[in-house]
Amino acid sequence: MKVIILAGGGGSRLFPLSRKAYPKQFLALEDDKSLLVHTVERFLSMVSPEDIVLVTNESYYYHVQNELELCHADKAHIVLEPIARNTAPAIALAAKYCDTELGCDRDEVLVIAAADHVIRQREAFADCVSKAAAVAGEDAFVTFGIKPRSPETGYGYIEAGEERDGSFRVLSFKEKPDLALAEQYLAAGNYYWNSGMFAFRLGCILDELAAYQPEISGLLEGRSYQEVHDRFEDMPSISIDYAVAEHSKRVRMVPLSCYWNDIGSWDAMYDILPKDKAGNAVKGDCITIDCKNSLLIGHDRLIAGIGIDDLLLVESDDVIVATKKGNSQKVKDVVDTLKKNHRKEATEHTTLYYSWGTSSALGKGKNYVMRKLRIMPGKALPLRMHYHRTEHFIVLSGTAGVKRDDKAMMIHENESVFIPQTSRYELANPGRIPLEIIEIRNGTYLGEDDVVEF
Amino acid sequence: MKVIILAGGGGSRLFPLSRKAYPKQFLALEDDKSLLVHTVERFLSMVSPEDIVLVTNESYYYHVQNELELCHADKAHIVLEPIARNTAPAIALAAKYCDTELGCDRDEVLVIAAADHVIRQREAFADCVSKAAAVAGEDAFVTFGIKPRSPETGYGYIEAGEERDGSFRVLSFKEKPDLALAEQYLAAGNYYWNSGMFAFRLGCILDELAAYQPEISGLLEGRSYQEVHDRFEDMPSISIDYAVAEHSKRVRMVPLSCYWNDIGSWDAMYDILPKDKAGNAVKGDCITIDCKNSLLIGHDRLIAGIGIDDLLLVESDDVIVATKKGNSQKVKDVVDTLKKNHRKEATEHTTLYYSWGTSSALGKGKNYVMRKLRIMPGKALPLRMHYHRTEHFIVLSGTAGVKRDDKAMMIHENESVFIPQTSRYELANPGRIPLEIIEIRNGTYLGEDDVVEF
Repeated sequence: MKVIILAGGGGSRLFPLSRKAYPKQFLALEDDKSLLVHTVERFLSMVSPEDIVLVTNESYYYHVQNELELCHADKAHIVLEPIARNTAPAIALAAKYCDTELGCDRDEVLVIAAADHVIRQREAFADCVSKAAAVAGEDAFVTFGIKPRSPETGYGYIEAGEERDGSFRVLSFKEKPDLALAEQYLAAGNYYWNSGMFAFRLGCILDELAAYQPEISGLLEGRSYQEVHDRFEDMPSISIDYAVAEHSKRVRMVPLSCYWNDIGSWDAMYDILPKDKAGNAVKGDCITIDCKNSLLIGHDRLIAGIGIDDLLLVESDDVIVATKKGNSQKVKDVVDTLKKNHRKEATEHTTLYYSWGTSSALGKGKNYVMRKLRIMPGKALPLRMHYHRTEHFIVLSGTAGVKRDDKAMMIHENESVFIPQTSRYELANPGRIPLEIIEIRNGTYLGEDDVVEF
Repeated sequence: MKVIILAGGGGSRLFPLSRKAYPKQFLALEDDKSLLVHTVERFLSMVSPEDIVLVTNESYYYHVQNELELCHADKAHIVLEPIARNTAPAIALAAKYCDTELGCDRDEVLVIAAADHVIRQREAFADCVSKAAAVAGEDAFVTFGIKPRSPETGYGYIEAGEERDGSFRVLSFKEKPDLALAEQYLAAGNYYWNSGMFAFRLGCILDELAAYQPEISGLLEGRSYQEVHDRFEDMPSISIDYAVAEHSKRVRMVPLSCYWNDIGSWDAMYDILPKDKAGNAVKGDCITIDCKNSLLIGHDRLIAGIGIDDLLLVESDDVIVATKKGNSQKVKDVVDTLKKNHRKEATEHTTLYYSWGTSSALGKGKNYVMRKLRIMPGKALPLRMHYHRTEHFIVLSGTAGVKRDDKAMMIHENESVFIPQTSRYELANPGRIPLEIIEIRNGTYLGEDDVVEF
């Protein structure tokens, strides 16, 4: 069995915590581990890291690598999409990788999972996955259905037919319904939410793509993995549901009998968090006085709520979103407005990921910018130079190996080094622990593009 | 005429913007000038700076001085209360100052004004003040009344009797009423809000204090200003309304026929700000989508409101307060809760005022604190030493004169200096422009109390 984790999405539904540059799978919502880490860990009880394939966007590569290291799964494979497409191309690329790079045979079962869902009850989950794998082994295209808890209008539905041995024939797939229809589905009892998880033999998905998506299949056949990767852009942007599941004659449904939530909005986030007696869910440093049924998520400020009800209030380090419960799907409108105004808050996050580590904004003012750098052991900011700014580096922890023009030096904890304009320098972490540095840029022009690399 | 501006208050009703260490008079609410600066400027069209006496608490001295410099009124007098008392002792101390230090005779008219009210229409205001001064000259104890705009329950009321020449006999003072009573007052037409502004002859206030407040008067008579100042603590904490106005037989009321608001809550703040078509008042970087009748005040983050109505949301650099409109008097409860938990947010502000300038928090993390210092020309941080922390100073603008142990040096823009633990140092601004410095403290203990001064 191979597990394909789809970690390429770049949604904005949990803005301001999620951004294009920092999508939901990287958020730590329930504890201090990201949804991606939880997803990987869930499968590590079933397979080895080598059996996991993460499909993600090139721009998330270093971030995904960091996350895999965190859960000791750095031997997992990372498949990079050159461009964001939908799930069918992502799964096709991963299937090709399993075929030619991992040498899987056509009977290998592939389990497809999203990286950004909340799933609880790991043992029940593992049981469902192994059930699905068994059904998939009998050559079925398996979808995972969730027994609905409420008449949700935000999910697609699966209409289940007769059961055999714990899996169901699928009569039809239903688009996101309106409320009246969703209530009918709920009352009928044989409709399930479509979780977006799948299981099938490698041979099955290749056959079904050939049967229903010749445009995709044609790009896979007779080509090396590298060739498929290079022509990825030519694939149509289409979901695996539309591309295959709705056409396939082999589709069956296995109910996912554990807690599942795709956290598609701040309303959903409110649902998954523990609440106090007045129905308030709070994270971070919060005080509530006469508040009811509200969600308060603080970042580094104290949040005081007074007499509010049904409010969702979320602070990140550059944005605060306040929305009435039930309105949180309009968070997307904020992101669209910001994009229209070319504001970086729409897409960027204050922490940027690089091959050498991370750089987080600490603040800025007239003529200065402060950032915190975290350089991983053995890594380095490559040789570089700035025309318009001087830089001060102050070491908070670890030891920095600095080359400035022709001089090499070691900078220890609590020491600093000054880089004048146009000096060439390299900043390395020769040590065994992460090197943490405060960087202070001074100058009249402080743009990220004032950097010359050699 | 002398103008006594009462600038000693330390309220928490506009928390988180106002704190004990940063009361309302220092806030810039309508534009970039503080309420105190606006108050001083309002009177500068009527009197010279030398005719203005500011009564404030010792802990606000440097801040008040900065503000006076801003409006070119540094020749105004500052009377320092050694401890916070109510308005009667503050006025008594200022009257003593006018008497013995400024050499005013008993016929000098004193106009008493609060430093933290919003008053518009300066010419109309000046006309009222000169009207009141004339009435005071005829030996009346003059209060300023505001024609009520609504049945406010947060103000005391003045019941006006017959008019003579634009001023009214006062029949009675009424405590803050309940809503039914406030509505009766409004309907009656001869009730005015008590503004807390007064005008009287120096001789009048001394006589009335002698008649009705022998405890206060006894401390004034036959003593020098310095002696009165030193025994200020012995005065009873009582408002001038209770102490004198409600007893005096000479009290008259002059209507203040201009816009007045004492901004006693965030609800009041909402009232004074301009609003968009949907009734939203916004300050700072805000986006509103489907919002109604809400107040959004941003500091340095983007605030996005979605589908909210009747919400008051205020961000400062360390706290966010969200409250339903009509509940904003409960902001005090937040401050009380914080005080109970010994949290510095209850009283302190992130900018601290010193004799040499200001120090503002920029951020902190594990083992480091960043602040921005602004040292005024000719001023210096006196010789000092820290046991537990090293410090890096990076000059943003100006030139720093640093003595570190036995070494003197000049640090220029974009340069830095390092102060090891237990080094003695002095940090001066020998130049002509403010010296701006980023201070970075490193160490395992970073408390404000780790400083030894010599």
